[in-house]
Amino acid sequence: MPVLKVKEAKSTIVKPGVTRRLVHAEKLMLVVIDFDNGPWSEPEPAHFHVHEQTTYVAEGEFIFFCEGEPDQILSAGDMFWVLPNKKHTVQLLSKTVKLIDSFSPIREEFLQ
Amino acid sequence: MPVLKVKEAKSTIVKPGVTRRLVHAEKLMLVVIDFDNGPWSEPEPAHFHVHEQTTYVAEGEFIFFCEGEPDQILSAGDMFWVLPNKKHTVQLLSKTVKLIDSFSPIREEFLQ
Repeated sequence: MPVLKVKEAKSTIVKPGVTRRLVHAEKLMLVVIDFDNGPWSEPEPAHFHVHEQTTYVAEGEFIFFCEGEPDQILSAGDMFWVLPNKKHTVQLLSKTVKLIDSFSPIREEFLQ
Repeated sequence: MPVLKVKEAKSTIVKPGVTRRLVHAEKLMLVVIDFDNGPWSEPEPAHFHVHEQTTYVAEGEFIFFCEGEPDQILSAGDMFWVLPNKKHTVQLLSKTVKLIDSFSPIREEFLQ
């Protein structure tokens, strides 16, 4: 069944205060990330990946950093995208943030 | 700038009561769809596309129909995915529904 109900979903603890749950097709993965450990005094170290990424901000407020771009304060309803190999990161400004990330191709390492 | 702020976003009126706004990379498109014309007495006609799709339910309640699968009532926080060429549709049970859809490849027809 191509459905994951939130009440039945198992979240993976990425690290303390950060959980994710996901579904995926063949080349497309949807990842819901919940942060509960903000605000942060500095951003996470920037990272990059070969996957294209889009993100919808479902809750919270944070600074979005993307290589070659001005920093942006984003909040609920905002959207961004990240091209392959572009360094990016966030710094939480609110206690909680919920991001709806999509990746193509899928993040195989998230399935382990 | 790879950001679309909700306050600056132009929504496309898909039809009365249905709007969308979107961002995309090369092979990945993020589409926020807002329905404001529920509840419906019956589902929309089912449709299909070659694109893979994932969806996060941000608000509302509806029945999700997907070819070959049991119908499911979904609500905020639930997720689903649709494989290429699978017929699918929804029937709104609440007045408003907000879906966070992703597609790969991108829906070129949404750019026109």
